[in-house]
This record gives sequence, structure tokens and C-alpha cells, in this order.
Amino acid sequence: VSDTALIALDWGTTSARAYRLDATGAVKGVRNAPLGILQVPNGDFAAALDTLLGDWRDETAPRLASGMIGSRQGWVEAPYCDTPVASAGLAAGIVDVPGARLSIVPGVRTRDAAGTPDVMRGEETQILGAIDPARPLAFAVLPGTHSKWARVEHGRLAAFSTFMTGETYAALLDHTILGRLATHDTGDAQDADAFRRGLDRGLASARDGGALLHDAFGARTLALFGELAQSGVADWLSGLLIGHEIAAAQRMSPDMRDVMVIGSEALARRYVDACTHAGLAAAAAPPDAAARGLWRLARAA
Amino acid sequence: VSDTALIALDWGTTSARAYRLDATGAVKGVRNAPLGILQVPNGDFAAALDTLLGDWRDETAPRLASGMIGSRQGWVEAPYCDTPVASAGLAAGIVDVPGARLSIVPGVRTRDAAGTPDVMRGEETQILGAIDPARPLAFAVLPGTHSKWARVEHGRLAAFSTFMTGETYAALLDHTILGRLATHDTGDAQDADAFRRGLDRGLASARDGGALLHDAFGARTLALFGELAQSGVADWLSGLLIGHEIAAAQRMSPDMRDVMVIGSEALARRYVDACTHAGLAAAAAPPDAAARGLWRLARAA
Repeated sequence: VSDTALIALDWGTTSARAYRLDATGAVKGVRNAPLGILQVPNGDFAAALDTLLGDWRDETAPRLASGMIGSRQGWVEAPYCDTPVASAGLAAGIVDVPGARLSIVPGVRTRDAAGTPDVMRGEETQILGAIDPARPLAFAVLPGTHSKWARVEHGRLAAFSTFMTGETYAALLDHTILGRLATHDTGDAQDADAFRRGLDRGLASARDGGALLHDAFGARTLALFGELAQSGVADWLSGLLIGHEIAAAQRMSPDMRDVMVIGSEALARRYVDACTHAGLAAAAAPPDAAARGLWRLARAA
Repeated sequence: VSDTALIALDWGTTSARAYRLDATGAVKGVRNAPLGILQVPNGDFAAALDTLLGDWRDETAPRLASGMIGSRQGWVEAPYCDTPVASAGLAAGIVDVPGARLSIVPGVRTRDAAGTPDVMRGEETQILGAIDPARPLAFAVLPGTHSKWARVEHGRLAAFSTFMTGETYAALLDHTILGRLATHDTGDAQDADAFRRGLDRGLASARDGGALLHDAFGARTLALFGELAQSGVADWLSGLLIGHEIAAAQRMSPDMRDVMVIGSEALARRYVDACTHAGLAAAAAPPDAAARGLWRLARAA
């Protein structure tokens, strides 16, 4: 007799992950596949799900997925919930895939102070899994291609803001003059000093009103005059952008004192250090926040 | 008998232009060639110069060039002058090319408030050509790939700042998710309303502290929710970046009331409109600012 109570799926754009949870919500197994929604051959999501699950496909437990699988480009669209939204609201928006044993959590939409819409899909589930719902006020950041900063009030996702930090970093480094003098960075900080210098520059500049389009040019001129090693250009630029991001998030939420960093180990460590340096109490979330969030949503549903 | 008093050359990264000036400094002819320093076959600058000049090569008048031809990647390096610098200082830094009938104007280096170096090559000559040296205080912007904002006091280049506006625009539109929903823009404003909306967003955001990494994501979400036509995405993003640039330049120079826009016709018009909208008295410089600047420098030398 299987002890599986839930198959939880974190199904994004480039990869998919499945968790097997027992009746206490404990993760009993994890499976990964390079089957993000843009990687699924012929859009055959049913076959991709079978591949990802392997012999778990015979489990009779419910299956619940979050992430881009619920977008218009995914299997079935799960329409956005608007902020503020709590677990109950998200659970009420869960959509069943016709003809398949799978349900999908909706994404969330908000509007910033200027009225511009903002969206997330999958991060809402990780946030709910990482933040203690008993806390009156908490903040989370999910760093990456599109970093998300979220405000959570009593377990309710109140507001959030996307920053294109990771994607802008890659575009500037690979497709502008800034990469010309950079010797390449493979992801992890190779030059902690350069990162810190860029971070300080970004924080100070953004707090003084900010001029990212000007500041970024420093990655070239500092290297041009030998004031920054070419091996440090990429890390300096990363620090600069992250500094601008953190300072802007702090300005948007002046009552933010601490933040939970949800992400892969190396990137989470970089953000914990950077947030701490910026004056926030920062901690990395335990792994498998998505599995815990899906467990909470399955119970709320 | 030729009336040629100076052959003036504006020799940049991607193109080269030669002007024939008479003894009054009037431009009597212009020649262009796609022979920017990165386009010169085998780095044979002497042959490229002959091609550009055509039958002007027989003129005995002095030849003076400005731009990237004086960079380390150019023909002969003309070391940077530091700000503040006037015509006399630039003229004193002119370098002769050994074995060739050509002299090259130096570039200029400055440092921003944070001590980060900034550089220009060629723009200093255009600025000197466009700004009346009798004015106690004047400002100029040279929009483009790397926009330059300059402060000129009594004909002396006092300070300047580079903004990577054009290059960041291209990198974001062509190499991030923002281009996914954009139908392509061919350069000129195709959707003036979208440009104005982006401009207003950029100005307001930057004046409120700025969060470009967040604001840019609006080019996707506004289109995603049908609040911006896909044909307007590129112009909205252009307006957003230019708004951030102008607001930052205004913050850096709170005493700036008017600005001279030096650039090609369509881009200059876009910046004149945008600067006017931002509260500056803006006017486009007469064409051939480089030729006039080289004339002034040749007389100062």
C-alpha cells in the first residue's frame, strides 16, 4: 500500500519537477525532467507528464501543479487571481485538466503604484510554502531571470513586484559593449570584491535617485582605465543590478525589515549576502518551498 | 586655385564623414563612407582615408579628424584630456599621425559624482561646434547608442555623463522576453501615443526614485492584458528609457533649463519633443556640428 498523499508538480518554462508527499506532507521523493512547457515535444503535455512521473504514474493520489503549465502557452489556462489573495482564494481558482488526472494552481496578478499590471505563476505557491501564515507581515524575494519581491500579510499575498534583473544582466553582458572587456563568468561569484563594489554602487546610486542607464557604463570605463579587472566586469555588473533592485524594493516597501530568499542555493546565497549588506535581515528559505506550498493548497482545496 | 582651408573628418566606429571647408569656415562639400574604424579592411587606415577623400586627396589644406579614429583601436591614439577642458586644451592635445597628412583631436575623460570614469571621443568636437562659447552656461545632449549629456561653461566642457539608452533599448527588445510580444519598430516613432505613455512612465518613475528593472517589465504585462498594442511595445519601451535618461540628467544638473540636441534628424526630433515634455527648452542643433567644431579647433591650434 502506497503512503503517497499528493503528487506535487512545479512545472515551469524550462524544467519540471515532481514531488511525492506522504499524509504528513513530508517529501518522500523528487523527480526532475528538462520538460518545461517550451521543451515539451509537440506540446504533448500528457506524454511529458508520464515521462516526468515514471512509475509514480500508477499512484492514485491527487496531482497538483503550479507554474507556467497553467499559462496560455501551457496545458490548460488557469486564469489569474488578483491580489490580495490567500490560500483559500488560490485553491478556489484551481483548474482541472480535461481528460487528465491533473489540477493546476492559478497565477496571480497585481498592479503597481502606477497602475501597471504585474504577474507571477508558480512563485505564489513557493511563497505560500516558505512563509509562516501566522506572521502578520513578511517579505519574500525569488531572485532570477525575473526576480519577484512579495509582501505577505497574515499568509495573504498582498502585493508583489517583478524586476528583470537576471535577464537584463544577460542581455547587457552578451549583447552590448559591456561584454567586450569582460572575461566570462560562469554563474557563481568568481570575484566577490567586484560584486561587492558593484553592489555598493547600485545601492548608493538607487538611493540617490538612480540612473542605471548611466551606472552600467561604468562596467566598461572602470575596466578601460584598469580600475576593475576584466575578470571582475561580470560580477561588478551583477552587483550593480542587484543593488538597484534591492534599493528599489526597499523604497517600495519602507516597512520591510527582513526578507526570505527563495531560490537555488548559489543565487539564494548571493541575495542573502546582498540583502544583509543592504540592511535587511535575510535568510534562505528551506528547499522545496513549491512542494510545501502545493501541500497547503491541496489541503485548502 | 582651390578655396579649401580645412578638410575636417568625423571618423567614428561605424562610419566616416569628410567635410571641405573654405577660409570662412563654410562647408563647401561633404563625403561619407562606411569606413568606421571597425569597418576598415586590414586596418589600412591610409587606404580608407584615400577612399573617403576621393579627389580631395590632392588638396593641400590641413586635415583634422575627431572621433574613434583617435582611440586605441583607431589609427593613432590621442590620449584623453580631462574635464574641464576648452578649445585651447583640446587643440594642445591634437596628435599627428606619423607618415600621414592627418591630425587627430583627443577624446575627453571625466568622473561622475561617485568617481567612476566616463569618456567621449568625437562628441566633444560636436559640442564645441554647436554651443556658442559666449554663453556662461549651456547644456547639450547627443542621443544614441550611448547618449552623452554635457555641461558647457563659457565654451569650456565642464562635465558630462553617458547613458546606455540606445544600446540597452536594442538589447532588451531583441534579447529579452520584452520583444516576444512586440511587432517590430523600424526606428522612427510609429506609435507616438505609446512613446508618450512610456515617456511619462519613465519620467514619473525616475523622479520618484526610479526602478527601471521593474518598469521595463511593463512592456510585457501591458501588452499581455491588452492595455498596450503590440505595435506600440517598442515605442513604449523607447519612451520609458528616454524618460529615465532625461529625468536622471535633470537630477544631475538641477540648474539645467535648456538643452541643445545634437544628432540625426529623426532622433533629434524625438529628443527635442521628449525634453520639451520634461520641462526643458530644447532645440535641435544645426547640422554639421562636427565640421564647425573641427574648424574652431583648427583655428585654436
